Amino acid sequence: MPVLALLDGTIADPTHPLVRVDDLGLMRGDGIFETVLVVDGKPRELEPHFDRLVRSAAMLDMPEPSRAGFDRATRAVLGNWTGGPEIALKWVYTRGVEGGDGTPTGFALGLEIADKVKRQRADGIAAVTLDRGFDADAAARAPWLLLGAKTLSYAVNMAALREADRRGAEEVIFTTSDGAVLEGPTSTLIAVSGRTLRTPPATIGILPGTTQAALFRAAEREGWSVKVEPIRVPELTEADGVFLASSVRKVTRVHTIDGTQLTDSTALHGELVRLYDSEY
Amino acid sequence: MPVLALLDGTIADPTHPLVRVDDLGLMRGDGIFETVLVVDGKPRELEPHFDRLVRSAAMLDMPEPSRAGFDRATRAVLGNWTGGPEIALKWVYTRGVEGGDGTPTGFALGLEIADKVKRQRADGIAAVTLDRGFDADAAARAPWLLLGAKTLSYAVNMAALREADRRGAEEVIFTTSDGAVLEGPTSTLIAVSGRTLRTPPATIGILPGTTQAALFRAAEREGWSVKVEPIRVPELTEADGVFLASSVRKVTRVHTIDGTQLTDSTALHGELVRLYDSEY
Repeated sequence: MPVLALLDGTIADPTHPLVRVDDLGLMRGDGIFETVLVVDGKPRELEPHFDRLVRSAAMLDMPEPSRAGFDRATRAVLGNWTGGPEIALKWVYTRGVEGGDGTPTGFALGLEIADKVKRQRADGIAAVTLDRGFDADAAARAPWLLLGAKTLSYAVNMAALREADRRGAEEVIFTTSDGAVLEGPTSTLIAVSGRTLRTPPATIGILPGTTQAALFRAAEREGWSVKVEPIRVPELTEADGVFLASSVRKVTRVHTIDGTQLTDSTALHGELVRLYDSEY
Repeated sequence: MPVLALLDGTIADPTHPLVRVDDLGLMRGDGIFETVLVVDGKPRELEPHFDRLVRSAAMLDMPEPSRAGFDRATRAVLGNWTGGPEIALKWVYTRGVEGGDGTPTGFALGLEIADKVKRQRADGIAAVTLDRGFDADAAARAPWLLLGAKTLSYAVNMAALREADRRGAEEVIFTTSDGAVLEGPTSTLIAVSGRTLRTPPATIGILPGTTQAALFRAAEREGWSVKVEPIRVPELTEADGVFLASSVRKVTRVHTIDGTQLTDSTALHGELVRLYDSEY
């Protein structure tokens, strides 16, 4: 059963309406969010998630979110959770009601991890590469495109996942129009060759990944080499393993890209999961 | 006072919450909308607006919106309206609740025309050109970018308007990364030279304009030439007049682009407004 809490720490019924129709989060997708994984009552990467929420708010010229408010809401969700050992905890923060006094709408929503995600963690996924439409310089050139902000305007991300489904895959690896690897619609891409982990730089117009950062931290501590650098599409099929990381999916193995089966990275995946787990 | 109606024709209080937090319209900007201008109780371009809503729904793989439902909601808003002679009537249609039975959320909301819009209709606007990040072929190449669908994911459109404000302007003319003119964040661009009206083709990744279409219809009837064809950015300053058209703003004159004052198009604007008005 989902648990919903407001920023003042009160609990609300998630099956009852909470948002007005003129909330700009609904009318314009004008707001931001984070998804935090909670395991056995402990939120993971809480600081990086909140830092990213603050950065997204700044990119959207929104008031800085209240840490105390999201902490209250988080505690309320955790304290009222009666579900499984893992929670997908969403923080949502919108620009508030159109023509209002500028007070944002904020809440935290605790959800069960979907069975599909659990299966994907275990079995891996097939992905397709899809053009995200912009080139590698767009983020630097045009900050109003909000590339790298985690906004509620995710219709394209959802459409890309439906396109993947049409192509017989479950996930998407977005690419720039000039052939650089970006990210998944809700995940960070990691390519592994030998003992080196690589992920594209945020400056290319993607979200810096909290799970990817945790994995890189653990890997570096154990002597792996980690690189944040541009990755070209053909390098994906040449890698020893390709993974999509996110709070909820953790580190998920990509076994197929655009219909081509990749080198079996089951053992490598096991190592990365061990590294990730060692952080908690 | 805004008037809110549901697709079954019932009236709801717009100051009360109507939408659940797990509605995909809120969580993912995953839904579509239209804004219809109503003057003296008569909706303008009702058929083209509904056709475009249906087309947007198809682009997002959403169930086809019910014409009867939006008609009921529209009649309810109009019948309960106590405000001024003009209404900005919004139709909103989201993918519904996450993990639900797939029933979309739909409603119609009648709003007063903002004073700012009335002033802009009369006085014209300063606009800036902003790169929309994609090239002229992106829409054809990558339909999952939803270019040309009127989605609720408008965070970038809103960010662009804030960027215009920072640059001392009120409006934006989006351009492709390769220098073609697109549209405004919530309007269609029309460039006029002599007795010829021009607007960029929808295939370039923009919304086909209902107000622009009405104006072109009227102009053609009176012997003007109308062309739907690509427009390059430098052509804007060479034109006799540049206009942004939308349901709510009607045909609004652009008097300044990127800080450069354009040729005075006040008289031309008067002619276009007369043409537009002749349609109703």
